[in-house]
Amino acid sequence: MQGMADVRTIAFIGTGVMGRSMAEHLLRAGYALHVFNRTREKAEPLLAAGAQWHDSPGSAAAAAEMVISIVGFPADVEQIYLGAEGIVENASVGALLVDMTTSSPRLARRIAAAAAERGLMAVDAPVSGGDVGAREARLAIMAGGTAEAFARARPVLEKLGRTLVHQGGPGAGQHCKMANQIAVAVGMLAWAEALAYAKTAGLDPARVWESISGGAAGSWALTNLAPRALAGDFAPGFYVKHMLKDIGIALDCAAEMGFAAPGLETARAAYHRVLELGWGECGTQAIYRLYSEASTAAAGGGKSRA
Amino acid sequence: MQGMADVRTIAFIGTGVMGRSMAEHLLRAGYALHVFNRTREKAEPLLAAGAQWHDSPGSAAAAAEMVISIVGFPADVEQIYLGAEGIVENASVGALLVDMTTSSPRLARRIAAAAAERGLMAVDAPVSGGDVGAREARLAIMAGGTAEAFARARPVLEKLGRTLVHQGGPGAGQHCKMANQIAVAVGMLAWAEALAYAKTAGLDPARVWESISGGAAGSWALTNLAPRALAGDFAPGFYVKHMLKDIGIALDCAAEMGFAAPGLETARAAYHRVLELGWGECGTQAIYRLYSEASTAAAGGGKSRA
Repeated sequence: MQGMADVRTIAFIGTGVMGRSMAEHLLRAGYALHVFNRTREKAEPLLAAGAQWHDSPGSAAAAAEMVISIVGFPADVEQIYLGAEGIVENASVGALLVDMTTSSPRLARRIAAAAAERGLMAVDAPVSGGDVGAREARLAIMAGGTAEAFARARPVLEKLGRTLVHQGGPGAGQHCKMANQIAVAVGMLAWAEALAYAKTAGLDPARVWESISGGAAGSWALTNLAPRALAGDFAPGFYVKHMLKDIGIALDCAAEMGFAAPGLETARAAYHRVLELGWGECGTQAIYRLYSEASTAAAGGGKSRA
Repeated sequence: MQGMADVRTIAFIGTGVMGRSMAEHLLRAGYALHVFNRTREKAEPLLAAGAQWHDSPGSAAAAAEMVISIVGFPADVEQIYLGAEGIVENASVGALLVDMTTSSPRLARRIAAAAAERGLMAVDAPVSGGDVGAREARLAIMAGGTAEAFARARPVLEKLGRTLVHQGGPGAGQHCKMANQIAVAVGMLAWAEALAYAKTAGLDPARVWESISGGAAGSWALTNLAPRALAGDFAPGFYVKHMLKDIGIALDCAAEMGFAAPGLETARAAYHRVLELGWGECGTQAIYRLYSEASTAAAGGGKSRA
């Protein structure tokens, strides 16, 4: 079958914080890169390192055996794959298309179907692990697509992550990422509500953290994000506005399937309030600020009740 | 001041699964134990190891310099401390009273006040870590009481736990435990909703677990309880009915303080449904069963949608 030889040439679409680190790993691993990004400046370090610039996603795709994309929103994914001068229309015969954006399962299936019509293979492969995971090539990569497409993508994806799991057919990678985001979003409520409750009761939340973080209440977020929130550090690791995007996709999928997600609905309401308060550009730990400021108001200035 | 010498004689009230292991540690550490339990059989191994039996909490308390209790519900705590033949009325002058039951902060304050009227000191010191933590003397102990009472209790409590933190005045230990339970209860929603979503979408939840358990979605519960749930093992580590008891106490406290706890409200509704389905004697991981059976119904038999 065409295109089953090892991939050597990759079109990389989207060279933001995540994409740039990932593209660097591929350059270092010896792949020839053709890059496109909405703002060219962000691609400059890659161009200096030997990548070749293209003026459209389609032009980059036409020059490569494989396309990897990681952009912002589902609308961006739709545009670069299915829009004018898009990837599906312009990719070379037999090319493998891998979208690593967190996007909708339904769109992933549409792209896979459109790709198949042109004899192309598609994999949806969103990631978790954030900018640090991308930099250190230890992302968790959740892949959806045919077994054949996954097998072909595997050697390249292994350069980018540590946990690479084939979750099922087209869209399954995105569904797995939605499951991840559900656990993340609802898990944020868990520690934020717990520590804000303690603060309202007059306890020192940092001391409560000492008591609870090592046991059954423990989580990655309690260990890593709660201390930032308690220190008043709401700088983004993962943006509130992106959390809301992902919650919206997951709730749409849940509604389509008739799956009730009361925890996630509660998280959406809380994050929506965080956004309304003007903290959309904060990190997701800003949810603690919502709870603790609300409780300070309710408690009449947070006087001790313990 | 009276009673400030090192404690050598302890009354231990409540020798259930947790209490028996804890009492054994104290016997081994050389303390003389006077025990009471509602059903005497459960105390027999301790009596065989040298503890002395009493027919009431008050009688045991009268024979000791310190009282430790760990019983079932707040009503039991109220009964043994403030009821007829109770601890507060019968404790010897200068005794130190330490309740380790998960109970209400308000009751802890009432007991401390009643104790103070008789010249006794009281500490509320609930724990997390479960039966395994009790057996291995690595409980997290969250203490409330005066600095003086805590200092006096510390050498004894150190025989029972690994993380011993003074959280504040009377009731603060219970408030900290409530914070722990909020994080636990809402955190259970997080992974259960995530994995049931994935199952509804046609994914294999065990494979999704592989992708998400090591990252930002990770938690103690996802690591330790989700695999049991996925294997159909709903045997109790921590009972659903006890989770509901603790959620009820926490929500009462939240209401008193005017603290909004939407995540915990959502968890209560879900666990209440678990109870209604007859799974109150199951472990808390039965919440996954609720989600996944509901979703199987919604999905018309769980056919693949990925």
